[in-house]
Amino acid sequence: MWHGIIMAGGSGTRFWPLSRELYPKQFLSLVGEKSLLHGTVNRLLPLFPQEQVWIMVGTKHESETKRTLSSLPKGSSGQLSPRIFVEPQSKNTLPPLALASAFIKKMDPEGVLCVMASDHLISPEEKFLALMKQACLTVEQNDVILTFGIPPKRPETGFGYIEKGSPVDTGKFGQAPCFHVTKFVEKPSRPVAEAFFKDKTHLWNSGMFVFRATVFLEEIRKYQPKLHSLVEALEVTIGTPSEEQAIRDFYTQAPNISVDYGIMEHSTCVWTMASEIDWKDVGSFNALDEISDHDEKGNVLRGNVIAIDSEDSIIFGDKRVIATIGIKNLVIVDTDDATLISTKDDLQKVREVVSELKGKKRVEALEHRTTHRPWGHYTIIDQGPHYKIKRVTVNPDARLSLQMHLHRSEHWVVTSGTARVTLDDQEVYLHVNQSIDIPKTARHRIYNPGKVPLVIIEVQNGEYLEEDDIIRFQDDYNRIKSVNPQGESC
Amino acid sequence: MWHGIIMAGGSGTRFWPLSRELYPKQFLSLVGEKSLLHGTVNRLLPLFPQEQVWIMVGTKHESETKRTLSSLPKGSSGQLSPRIFVEPQSKNTLPPLALASAFIKKMDPEGVLCVMASDHLISPEEKFLALMKQACLTVEQNDVILTFGIPPKRPETGFGYIEKGSPVDTGKFGQAPCFHVTKFVEKPSRPVAEAFFKDKTHLWNSGMFVFRATVFLEEIRKYQPKLHSLVEALEVTIGTPSEEQAIRDFYTQAPNISVDYGIMEHSTCVWTMASEIDWKDVGSFNALDEISDHDEKGNVLRGNVIAIDSEDSIIFGDKRVIATIGIKNLVIVDTDDATLISTKDDLQKVREVVSELKGKKRVEALEHRTTHRPWGHYTIIDQGPHYKIKRVTVNPDARLSLQMHLHRSEHWVVTSGTARVTLDDQEVYLHVNQSIDIPKTARHRIYNPGKVPLVIIEVQNGEYLEEDDIIRFQDDYNRIKSVNPQGESC
Repeated sequence: MWHGIIMAGGSGTRFWPLSRELYPKQFLSLVGEKSLLHGTVNRLLPLFPQEQVWIMVGTKHESETKRTLSSLPKGSSGQLSPRIFVEPQSKNTLPPLALASAFIKKMDPEGVLCVMASDHLISPEEKFLALMKQACLTVEQNDVILTFGIPPKRPETGFGYIEKGSPVDTGKFGQAPCFHVTKFVEKPSRPVAEAFFKDKTHLWNSGMFVFRATVFLEEIRKYQPKLHSLVEALEVTIGTPSEEQAIRDFYTQAPNISVDYGIMEHSTCVWTMASEIDWKDVGSFNALDEISDHDEKGNVLRGNVIAIDSEDSIIFGDKRVIATIGIKNLVIVDTDDATLISTKDDLQKVREVVSELKGKKRVEALEHRTTHRPWGHYTIIDQGPHYKIKRVTVNPDARLSLQMHLHRSEHWVVTSGTARVTLDDQEVYLHVNQSIDIPKTARHRIYNPGKVPLVIIEVQNGEYLEEDDIIRFQDDYNRIKSVNPQGESC
Repeated sequence: MWHGIIMAGGSGTRFWPLSRELYPKQFLSLVGEKSLLHGTVNRLLPLFPQEQVWIMVGTKHESETKRTLSSLPKGSSGQLSPRIFVEPQSKNTLPPLALASAFIKKMDPEGVLCVMASDHLISPEEKFLALMKQACLTVEQNDVILTFGIPPKRPETGFGYIEKGSPVDTGKFGQAPCFHVTKFVEKPSRPVAEAFFKDKTHLWNSGMFVFRATVFLEEIRKYQPKLHSLVEALEVTIGTPSEEQAIRDFYTQAPNISVDYGIMEHSTCVWTMASEIDWKDVGSFNALDEISDHDEKGNVLRGNVIAIDSEDSIIFGDKRVIATIGIKNLVIVDTDDATLISTKDDLQKVREVVSELKGKKRVEALEHRTTHRPWGHYTIIDQGPHYKIKRVTVNPDARLSLQMHLHRSEHWVVTSGTARVTLDDQEVYLHVNQSIDIPKTARHRIYNPGKVPLVIIEVQNGEYLEEDDIIRFQDDYNRIKSVNPQGESC
């Protein structure tokens, strides 16, 4: 069986302030309405049944991953059927791929893994699927790791390259020419990139690669024996009650190492397929120039923008009016709580902005003012001394945990939909413009019994209004025991 | 008696988005904490008793003018004692000065008017007052209009100039040299401005001038006879019951004409005083470079700004984080609902932005999200289909009108202070976190009986939520009968 493995990490830095630490690039809708991650899953579905799509995510991105994929057709259990594998900690790319290989080998010793990033843009889809099929058939018959190389379109210095060796004949599986790989080259200097572009001896390294689980594990045994013994220790627990703990132990002990550095650069059984597709690693806001429509002055405009004598700029407005005059070559990105204004040439320094925000412990580095939860979402619309106001949206048939707060009272007013509120031993229904007081230390819960979203305005009063003032008694989303690094409330 | 006449018009265009049509430049605090208008009044007080300070404002700026001056010591009546003269319509500068002259002549035939803008910066104050005193003494003894000319500091092309004629001796009144005026020159070209600067034959026209009411009215008789007859018709009504109607008639019929164009350019009795003061007509955000502190990279920064590799820029943040990278020579001004990003060289085109917003009937051209009222202020913090949320702040001992709404119900939660709420025949006190429902068509009123500001969160629900859904039964601020062009609510 073939499995699509989507690597969905991400620090949320390069697209700040659209992205945040808790909301990295794969959740953004840079093209169309769906998130990049959703686009990646959709691209795979004609070739891989949902059950054979694995998404590797960190704990802090689990719920947003589920949310962004919630419109996928549900499996027979009524649940999302791509397997969302939550990594207990981040250990770069090799340990999670070793682990995925072990799981897949257990299910199917001949299983094939097709590894890709969650946030690339690839077209046309049919061509991509044909190449992916060729790749899978090739690795079923050959003990190799087959990487997708992209014939360079320009002397790009922002990508790694793959040096083509002698050709190999995989013609019976498809039409793309394949080669032995003689070398992986890190991001080259300009003259080197120009030479590569002229000589046609190198391909861009797309970061996509395909292999049989057993072949990959064998390469790990050869080049990362310590990691291999951790995998072996894990393998025996798969499907047993100690599996969960074994995974945690595995991540605790695994080295922090990339698949390129740990395997690819050593292995002698790596091939590459010259893949004639339009592949884009959307690495910064500048990439929007490639993938978006422009006005007659070369601007990419979104939102409520008034651009006077402004040229060659990327302006992403939100609700606010953004007015520009006489600007050129700028990137302006506005969100509820933060605005970025950068020259196109200096965008890589956005990481300095994020790092300064983190140094100041500013929430703008971490998350948006709108926070998504399994039951819906909330937005902080105002806050001041001893009060905070949220607009809370509860999805139909969803409910928050049964909870209480030690330091704040809450007051709820319904502005849309119907709420069923539990308050200590009482249960009441609230309609539009009805309200209720939730005193400190009262047990309470909101449920939306209706068919349309329930919207309430929550006015909090108290001496301490942080999200971690919460004691949960019951929760539909298993958030009682779970480690809660972000102090998640509601 | 000497009277200070402050001309406080303004379209709110050049400092958009800090200024708005309802909140023009004189209300901004560009230097220090007080508004420019307040600074102008303060500057006069050592020489002019408050009762002799007149402020000429349009109807739409009346309440904000009172608010910005509310910290002035109150007169014996307990009211603000500068005379705030509300012009029923805008007719440029000559008609209001003709009218003020008529009123002052009626009170005091020898009365002197000292005319100035509301939004200039002048220092040092003692020097200014000495010059103003010299000017008043001079016009008491001479039938002239004495203008304040400023010896040019640079070959400025943004100001009008005054050509100095033969000197006149006013030495007994003060030390500044005075001259006949031979010509007023509109904003000159660069070479002309450079010649003026080199030859020292011209002074900047500061727009400040001093005259006796009778002398000014006589010049109006000579050069604007039609306007003079309107003034004569008005004069006989001053102090009678028909005064109010006569003022309205005067404004309806008066020509729309500036004092420069209508009088100064014709009159043969204009003198100028070479005034060695630091005078600034803060004409655009660029002026902030002159009056503000800079960081080591030449930036003027205010608010929550992270500036990476950014130079020579003016960045006015608000609450939101503003991050800039690699920018140079930009002006960035952020407010709750609108952000401007302009090159310093193109700032004059901000009027095109405002005009485009007006064309789209966008509220961002007209006012800020925080709206001031005689009793306090409110901010719209969120709105959506069928609901609107305001944070309402009521000053101590102030109350809103007794009112009702036909299309919306309201729900109030106190977050700070104590409220006394009238609801039909009931009266209740609400403390922090207490709330009340105000149904549609219920008569209601909020009063702050306490010593600290009362803050309430108001959640409005209804099919129509505009500000003009209000019926007032009683109001402390005479807003029941008054024409209400902005659809003022609360």
